[in-house]
Amino acid sequence: MLAFTSPKPGCYAKELKMRTVDLIFRKRQGEELSPEEVVFLVNGFTRGEIPDYQMSAFLMAVCWQGMTEREVSALTDCMLESGEVIDLSGVQGVKVDKHSTGGVGDKTSLIAAPIAAAAGVVVPMISGRGLGHTGGTLDKLEAIPGFRTSLSIGEFHAQLQQLGLAFIGQSAEVTPADGKLYSLRDATATVESIALIASSIMSKKLAVGLDALVLDVKVGSGAFMKKQIDARRLAQLMVGIGRRANKRVQALITDMNQPLGYAVGNALEIMEVSQTLQNAGPVDLTRLSLELAARMIHLGRAADSIEEAREVAQTRLLDGSGYKKLKEVITAQGGNAQVLDRFELLPNATGMREVYSPRSGYVSAVDAELIGRASQMIGAGRDLKDDAIDPAVGVILEVKVGQKVESGGVLCRIYYTGEDRVEDAAEQVEDAFRISQQAPEERELILEVVG
Amino acid sequence: MLAFTSPKPGCYAKELKMRTVDLIFRKRQGEELSPEEVVFLVNGFTRGEIPDYQMSAFLMAVCWQGMTEREVSALTDCMLESGEVIDLSGVQGVKVDKHSTGGVGDKTSLIAAPIAAAAGVVVPMISGRGLGHTGGTLDKLEAIPGFRTSLSIGEFHAQLQQLGLAFIGQSAEVTPADGKLYSLRDATATVESIALIASSIMSKKLAVGLDALVLDVKVGSGAFMKKQIDARRLAQLMVGIGRRANKRVQALITDMNQPLGYAVGNALEIMEVSQTLQNAGPVDLTRLSLELAARMIHLGRAADSIEEAREVAQTRLLDGSGYKKLKEVITAQGGNAQVLDRFELLPNATGMREVYSPRSGYVSAVDAELIGRASQMIGAGRDLKDDAIDPAVGVILEVKVGQKVESGGVLCRIYYTGEDRVEDAAEQVEDAFRISQQAPEERELILEVVG
Repeated sequence: MLAFTSPKPGCYAKELKMRTVDLIFRKRQGEELSPEEVVFLVNGFTRGEIPDYQMSAFLMAVCWQGMTEREVSALTDCMLESGEVIDLSGVQGVKVDKHSTGGVGDKTSLIAAPIAAAAGVVVPMISGRGLGHTGGTLDKLEAIPGFRTSLSIGEFHAQLQQLGLAFIGQSAEVTPADGKLYSLRDATATVESIALIASSIMSKKLAVGLDALVLDVKVGSGAFMKKQIDARRLAQLMVGIGRRANKRVQALITDMNQPLGYAVGNALEIMEVSQTLQNAGPVDLTRLSLELAARMIHLGRAADSIEEAREVAQTRLLDGSGYKKLKEVITAQGGNAQVLDRFELLPNATGMREVYSPRSGYVSAVDAELIGRASQMIGAGRDLKDDAIDPAVGVILEVKVGQKVESGGVLCRIYYTGEDRVEDAAEQVEDAFRISQQAPEERELILEVVG
Repeated sequence: MLAFTSPKPGCYAKELKMRTVDLIFRKRQGEELSPEEVVFLVNGFTRGEIPDYQMSAFLMAVCWQGMTEREVSALTDCMLESGEVIDLSGVQGVKVDKHSTGGVGDKTSLIAAPIAAAAGVVVPMISGRGLGHTGGTLDKLEAIPGFRTSLSIGEFHAQLQQLGLAFIGQSAEVTPADGKLYSLRDATATVESIALIASSIMSKKLAVGLDALVLDVKVGSGAFMKKQIDARRLAQLMVGIGRRANKRVQALITDMNQPLGYAVGNALEIMEVSQTLQNAGPVDLTRLSLELAARMIHLGRAADSIEEAREVAQTRLLDGSGYKKLKEVITAQGGNAQVLDRFELLPNATGMREVYSPRSGYVSAVDAELIGRASQMIGAGRDLKDDAIDPAVGVILEVKVGQKVESGGVLCRIYYTGEDRVEDAAEQVEDAFRISQQAPEERELILEVVG
């Protein structure tokens, strides 16, 4: 950990301000700051000594010029040390978490985690909520009647010990500096920065006593990272930060040009999770979930090689033990586990609108961001952090990239509870589909492994 | 002038904030904002509806991505309209001002303005103070015992009518938006932006009822613009803004790699102004002052061609009428005009330190910024806006670029009143001089004319 360098005792606010300007200036010129300088800025900001307006200028300069791995590590450590650290040393077993940078229809956590837990890995899953066009694991779980994500630390410990898996929300006491910084970034168009995203994710993950971490870095139209080179840089930065903190970290870079699976929307995605854990799910979702589970199992030392880990994951899917694990976890966290068999127990939409293909041909693209936005528009996602969401609504694709469709055939179905913005959403969805005469080239789902 | 677009009545602060984020985001992506969007941001900020932290992020994004001429014009208009406009329509004659972007040893205003006024042009000179390593005309004038720069508008009018020249400081009521924006830029390392510099200068100049404006855009080590391409862009932007406002505007791009003349420091520069107006000044200072005066005379319609204007300027220098004009102005503004003949009446330094050449050769460079910083260090300039300055102190060069010097010969003399930082200043000055065996190539003083 870094030595903390505070300004000299008795220094004037004026000096502090001047020094801050100087650091902002150097960053805008593209210079690397020392770890002590990064700590000076972040701690000054967290303590309220450096004003918001200087920090936001600094953040924009970071978006412009980027940060080196040394700078990002200093920033991460600093945020990590700003708050509580959840100590899991009392829980037996190897602790492995999985984190996705956010996508559309991405419910892999709810599939990979139960499979890995069923294979003997301990999975302390600290999840977030969705923002913008991307969904969040907590929102999906809360579509299950009764499910509680606000466990106490004691409950979290106990459940991890007993079941090997528990889902919990981010506490405000963990990395408050990140929380404060994120609010400012959100208001100043400085969210999109590889360095800031990497340190925000890693500070939250390192605040939990993990042994290993599997990262799923999404790339494509539905992801924050639109280009593979950016996704790779983000993955490398996060793996580097994790290694500096002595964690085993691997990142997959995976395609998010089209939604994962067919379902987008909270309750709809829970249904698809259930089908997938019963080996009746979409091919892409099953494949990626199994690979993530295998990486968790391997890093979690429950298999000696990645090949063996893949076999273990496959077995835990096919023998239904992953499915059983999720049911146990739902029950333990107050939810009604019957929803996995009886979908009518989940919140249900009251209306449905089909979207048709204007011509026959091959589906050559399904823009994930547009599908995500359409789903958000009718209430499945939030514009702002405190907006309420409607668990019942969403979109179910009927076809995905590479499939044939007839003129007038159904492209997808929109499930809604209010008619307000359904037509706008339908328009977005129509724009999302591209139909061409030639079959598109097949695209890789898992593009790279980093670390 | 722009139609002003305010947010819809009854709009929520939340909407305002979201819209602002969106505009920041678009600027960081390099998109052009519409004039209405620029007005929305600047007026929102000036009224306190858009918080500092959003504005500073926007400003950094502008430093990053720049602004188009249309955006800069909208910004300028907006700042202009935020405050009072000084109406000079009651003053007879063609009103022409001159503005320099700031340099070291730049006392051309105090030479060119009296010459132009002596030639019949009305020169309402609104000047600024020095900041950092550059000097300001007001500070130089205030080295003259009794000189008042805080004239009332009535006094300003009367003196312009009577003498054709008056010097006045920037009032807080003129372009308050620029003042507020500048304070924020100063604290957030966003001063250095061609677009922001252009609009700041031009809004202040357009707030006075001018007919024409001559700009001296400095380029080189002692200027804000280090590269000619940036100076050209700044000059073009300012000329464009002026033309959109129906003013005759010309810009000279001039070298500021070494100080202009030999004297740097307020009282020392007044002495050199006096010598120059008596045709006994340094060649470079005389040449640039005459060219600026000629441009003022030409744009001020006191000569039909620039060639004729050059002859007029030369005559007004040689016949002593420029010198006489400055004396009259000093007297009218409460100063002791005798200082121009009797330098001992000016504030005088109490100590002098010579700096010697380490070897014989040709002076191949005199870094203007280092000379300016050395001078600032011993009290001639200010670090912060409200710092006091010492009018007596400064640096006098003994040699300039191209001249020969012997080993141990005097390079320059530092005049001080306190010994505190003299040795540090001497070190800076030593670093400023480069002595080489070969004579350097001759450099142009006036590099380009724009407009």
